[in-house]
Amino acid sequence: MRITEAELTRRRESFAAALDERSLDGAVLFDPQHVHYFTGFFFIPTERPIAFAIANDGRGGMLVPRPELEHAQANTAVQEVAHYDEYPGDRHPMEPLRELIRALGVGGRLGADHDGYPWMFGYRGPSLGEWTQIADAVEDQMAIKSAAEIDLLRESCKWANLAHTLLQRYTRVGITETEVERRASNEATSAMLDAIGPVYRSQSAYYDGAIAGYRGQIGRNAAIPHAHGNNIVFQPGDVLVTGASAPIWGYHSELERTMVIGTPTNEQRRMFEHMVALQDIAFETIRPGARCSDVDEAVRAYYDEHALWDNWRHHVGHAIGMRYHEGPFLDRGDPTEIRPGMVFTVEPGLYAAGLGGFRHSDTVVVTEDGLDFLTYYPRDLESLTLPA
Amino acid sequence: MRITEAELTRRRESFAAALDERSLDGAVLFDPQHVHYFTGFFFIPTERPIAFAIANDGRGGMLVPRPELEHAQANTAVQEVAHYDEYPGDRHPMEPLRELIRALGVGGRLGADHDGYPWMFGYRGPSLGEWTQIADAVEDQMAIKSAAEIDLLRESCKWANLAHTLLQRYTRVGITETEVERRASNEATSAMLDAIGPVYRSQSAYYDGAIAGYRGQIGRNAAIPHAHGNNIVFQPGDVLVTGASAPIWGYHSELERTMVIGTPTNEQRRMFEHMVALQDIAFETIRPGARCSDVDEAVRAYYDEHALWDNWRHHVGHAIGMRYHEGPFLDRGDPTEIRPGMVFTVEPGLYAAGLGGFRHSDTVVVTEDGLDFLTYYPRDLESLTLPA
Repeated sequence: MRITEAELTRRRESFAAALDERSLDGAVLFDPQHVHYFTGFFFIPTERPIAFAIANDGRGGMLVPRPELEHAQANTAVQEVAHYDEYPGDRHPMEPLRELIRALGVGGRLGADHDGYPWMFGYRGPSLGEWTQIADAVEDQMAIKSAAEIDLLRESCKWANLAHTLLQRYTRVGITETEVERRASNEATSAMLDAIGPVYRSQSAYYDGAIAGYRGQIGRNAAIPHAHGNNIVFQPGDVLVTGASAPIWGYHSELERTMVIGTPTNEQRRMFEHMVALQDIAFETIRPGARCSDVDEAVRAYYDEHALWDNWRHHVGHAIGMRYHEGPFLDRGDPTEIRPGMVFTVEPGLYAAGLGGFRHSDTVVVTEDGLDFLTYYPRDLESLTLPA
Repeated sequence: MRITEAELTRRRESFAAALDERSLDGAVLFDPQHVHYFTGFFFIPTERPIAFAIANDGRGGMLVPRPELEHAQANTAVQEVAHYDEYPGDRHPMEPLRELIRALGVGGRLGADHDGYPWMFGYRGPSLGEWTQIADAVEDQMAIKSAAEIDLLRESCKWANLAHTLLQRYTRVGITETEVERRASNEATSAMLDAIGPVYRSQSAYYDGAIAGYRGQIGRNAAIPHAHGNNIVFQPGDVLVTGASAPIWGYHSELERTMVIGTPTNEQRRMFEHMVALQDIAFETIRPGARCSDVDEAVRAYYDEHALWDNWRHHVGHAIGMRYHEGPFLDRGDPTEIRPGMVFTVEPGLYAAGLGGFRHSDTVVVTEDGLDFLTYYPRDLESLTLPA
């Protein structure tokens, strides 16, 4: 199910052509998802630098710490490998990186996604010197998903759907979010691991299994778009905002639902129905040739029409894939043209102090003539009302 | 138990003095842990920039998205708040950031920990222009822990100890790492949440509760220093390398142990005893006035003496606190002087293909005359041998 070597090769060829178009001799990529995207090499970043370098003829090289040497040498994206024993070590890892770049024949203009390895987890290091920012080219390429990537996202949605189903089933008055989240996530993860079998790899920096939870978005707290989990006890009348996902070979979907415990009040019902209407407008507006900003503007017109601005907190959605947020954004400030293969979350929200938050999030893929839903969990209030 | 306002103020005063010493008018910090360290303001980074700015007289300011405005205004570290409605939005967030810097009276030389907000999760933005790297000053300051920080780390060790105790108790032949890890982590987390009560906050970008697990470092896989979890079934004769931690108001400890399933073989026993001896040498060498490199060199002498270089993979350890890895490093390339209040993991390892990995990690704090252990889990082979 993972991305094939042939697809990784096409990605690199396409990127090498983009470098050539920008008159760059090559590029070095430090971002772990950028490296993963072009090589299939997954790693969790630490203070020990890892980088992928590519020449504009498509030849690749990697900088790795010594224990990763054999792993990097076995990677078909990699013709040259530079390594260092340890960081800080005897020799700063940016020295072998410079040698790697020279070994690839990249003598002139160099692109990069960061000015040297980022200072994190105690790493300190020099800047690259002369370089050109090419993260935008990588991101633009990553924004168009292939059929194989969409399959991975569909698989992610399936296990997120299971985790969410269990979350809804186990949520009840008097118990805490933490016990429900963990029970649902554990059972969904076990099922996923046993169903897919030992070939499964999460390859995610964010999640290590299927996950469903509330992140503290419960009752009054739900008025904050992204609260933090806090072991809250469920009460009758609570408005709940959920979140579910599952990492599948590095790909993540997003499923969120608004649920109510007990018979919804008129005001809860009103906000819920407005929220569903906002999401419907977005679904109708997303199509190839429209701009990302068009979707946000269409949804904003509804906020205008129904005087809902006090309840607005954020734009309609974002792209998703190897990161749980990525660009482009369904935002009035993003003029990017919507194209087939783009995958977005659609999640306009309404937030009311004292009442709660109202937000569904669905993951959709843009097709030749509109969109396909990747998530498929019920969206209506009746299905999302829990017994009090 | 969290860090007091008075301590946050002292941190800012100390940093402002460091800026003044470097003839900087002020600084802007983008790294979430840097912001958290100086303000107590915790956030999970996304494409929406958040930054803390500080003038060299100690006045502070924050850039936040609109939903965080009231939260930022209520923060005593913050005298000026700049906000934006959304990213990308109508106006790039770096515009209000520039206004914030001017409002703080920082007109001249500006320090920063990054050249603008990092490009992540689809964010794209301009560089800062003229700026001076001051992440090193922040990191040097963060490396010396206060009594309150050490208390938080001790609390972290307690819950890591519980999670690890349960992990060891539940591990047995024929079940998988995933079920054991999740059961141990869930029970330890529930106990921690109920014991500390609703005031508890993890404030961690890495963990959302007490955690203990194997990360795939099981049997033959354990020869890789940091493998990835893979739902492996425990077998008699497996050498296991564990990891446990718990986030306590943003602070993390590290506890790792080598365990063996069934009576250890002679070769397992030999490697285990060498590993304990390596760790003992490190404990004896860590003291104020020594250099970080001295500790690594002392441990390396033992690898020399016992011909263990084939089994070496990494340096002795790293500092730890708000990040699960941070500098300085117990590494021959790090000449930093060891000072009271520094907190290190001590974790020299031995790795043998076909046999497994052997590594304990303890978290220790440097005192006036040596070190104190923060972790306190048994280290001897008998205590760490599981029934087959």
